[in-house]
Amino acid sequence: MSQGYTVAIVGATGAVGQKIIEKLVERSFPYKTLKLLASKKSAGKQVEVDGSSYTIEEATPEAFEGVDVAFFSAGGSISKVLAKEASNRGAIVIDNTSAFRMDKDTPLVVPEVNKQALHEQTGIIANPNCSTIQMVCALEPIRQKFGLTKVIVSTYQAVSGAGAAAINELTTQSEGIKDKQAKPEILPVKSAEKHYPIAGNVIPQIDVFTEDGFTFEEHKMMDETKKIMSLPNLAIAATCVRVPVVTGHSESVYVEVDQENVSIDQLKQLLANSEGITLQDAPDQQFYPMPYYADGKDDVFVGRLRKDPSNDKGFHMWIVSDNLLKGAALNSIQIAEALIAEGILKEV
Amino acid sequence: MSQGYTVAIVGATGAVGQKIIEKLVERSFPYKTLKLLASKKSAGKQVEVDGSSYTIEEATPEAFEGVDVAFFSAGGSISKVLAKEASNRGAIVIDNTSAFRMDKDTPLVVPEVNKQALHEQTGIIANPNCSTIQMVCALEPIRQKFGLTKVIVSTYQAVSGAGAAAINELTTQSEGIKDKQAKPEILPVKSAEKHYPIAGNVIPQIDVFTEDGFTFEEHKMMDETKKIMSLPNLAIAATCVRVPVVTGHSESVYVEVDQENVSIDQLKQLLANSEGITLQDAPDQQFYPMPYYADGKDDVFVGRLRKDPSNDKGFHMWIVSDNLLKGAALNSIQIAEALIAEGILKEV
Repeated sequence: MSQGYTVAIVGATGAVGQKIIEKLVERSFPYKTLKLLASKKSAGKQVEVDGSSYTIEEATPEAFEGVDVAFFSAGGSISKVLAKEASNRGAIVIDNTSAFRMDKDTPLVVPEVNKQALHEQTGIIANPNCSTIQMVCALEPIRQKFGLTKVIVSTYQAVSGAGAAAINELTTQSEGIKDKQAKPEILPVKSAEKHYPIAGNVIPQIDVFTEDGFTFEEHKMMDETKKIMSLPNLAIAATCVRVPVVTGHSESVYVEVDQENVSIDQLKQLLANSEGITLQDAPDQQFYPMPYYADGKDDVFVGRLRKDPSNDKGFHMWIVSDNLLKGAALNSIQIAEALIAEGILKEV
Repeated sequence: MSQGYTVAIVGATGAVGQKIIEKLVERSFPYKTLKLLASKKSAGKQVEVDGSSYTIEEATPEAFEGVDVAFFSAGGSISKVLAKEASNRGAIVIDNTSAFRMDKDTPLVVPEVNKQALHEQTGIIANPNCSTIQMVCALEPIRQKFGLTKVIVSTYQAVSGAGAAAINELTTQSEGIKDKQAKPEILPVKSAEKHYPIAGNVIPQIDVFTEDGFTFEEHKMMDETKKIMSLPNLAIAATCVRVPVVTGHSESVYVEVDQENVSIDQLKQLLANSEGITLQDAPDQQFYPMPYYADGKDDVFVGRLRKDPSNDKGFHMWIVSDNLLKGAALNSIQIAEALIAEGILKEV
């Protein structure tokens, strides 16, 4: 077992970090050893991974000596401090925060969509925002076959995207849903001035607001989609909403294609045969994607395909995926797998 | 107290029926007496209304003798059997079901939008679908001032729209949200073959599916909006989704106006001064509509106004209202009040 990569996971004790570890084992990622890095507070803890015992180490610049691949998932401020330290020491960083996503020198990658961008990497590769990833997986095959000119998306996003404390907030509030005894402290944004209940509520704010009235989350969806798909002029608008769901983001998406007379059957056939997509679209059997059932699954689920009643080039669809898996941990590992397949990460 | 109308409430023991009774008292509707009608099962029960005691009577054709106004809210099949019986006996029926909404001889009315249609009534007036009412309240002032050419709406609908059993299903499931022990029996559609959990889930099905892949709920929003606004050629598409919220429907709405260079400030000022609308739009103070806070309130709340990034004529907004009040009971009573104000229901 001397072959394989030395893999670091920064934020190894967090929700996404733990999913990364689980998925590395499940997918038999060729690692030789794992370095589980976290804050000083967690350092020293013992963790069992696939029968081996690991000690959590503090994430310091020196901890990246000898690391081949480093998955970062400990917040943007940690990535800003340590990602360059890791890449300067020879590691390829796959960063799950928003720290470098819009940097022009940082590829922003969903392997099914733009793995060729990995060849432009200079040490750091960014994993896109969860709500962006699942959407572009469904949009890319449509763009390739029929062209894509316009996207309007409204999201139904799970609380696990806001971390373990937000999950706890939802489950605690849910137990008191009848008497409205919620005492919100985390959502919509922990650092924001006001907090609102999520159980029995929906909150039309994810991340903070920007000057144009859109939130950062909405800008992430709009800007990242353009970058990943290399469509700088795509007409795209997003409305991002938090709903009382633990895991699994849902999206109501309207698209306009560039070609006339595209049929729903053509669209169904296309998506049914697209990588990473599972078509769940049989209204007569009440078969459509739902977050309750997508939780824990790798795929992006697409259904409720309909032609717009007034626009031959317009289509409506419903996209659901596990925001911690394809939206975060799984996509990060698929980036690493693509780095190997493309010969960018040399076999060891 | 010999003056005033004889008012019947059909479905007096249901969620909407009870709200109608509450609102009749709260708004000092000029009733002389109430006839509380329900199924045979509930007949004989005593109910206290504003200090007076009433006996629930069985809803039979004869029960409508001497009735001036009858509010129907006991399901479409009851309305189909009894509404004509009531109007044949001289009552004006205000029907809260979908039974007559699309009949060409039945006015479909939201008083802020089209109270003039009341003059065409021939005994039955239909109250629109809850999700339609709140949307047209916000769309009508926009149409009047700037024109309206296109609407794309995605809804976040509360379970109380599916009745008391659905509320009970959500609250019971919410208590077990951590362990996913849901045993669904009501949602998405009680009579449908499959039922799905609503706690920790969102369900992209409200009402049954039609052949084109849209649900009846989605068709209601599209068809009723065109009828109420007298815009038969409006480009409109809806995606209707049930969320784990007890009361309060939310809507993410994209509109295109007919005029160039409309500013967000113009739109805000317009909506702030529109009847029945409360503008809640101050992102810098995290101020926007949410169902948790709209529950029990009369108004339609509008916020998150944004100009589309790619279309000068496109705007995004977020509309929330109590689906049992403006979406049902309140609008029904406002129709009756408008019938009096317009001289259609003669003063007695």
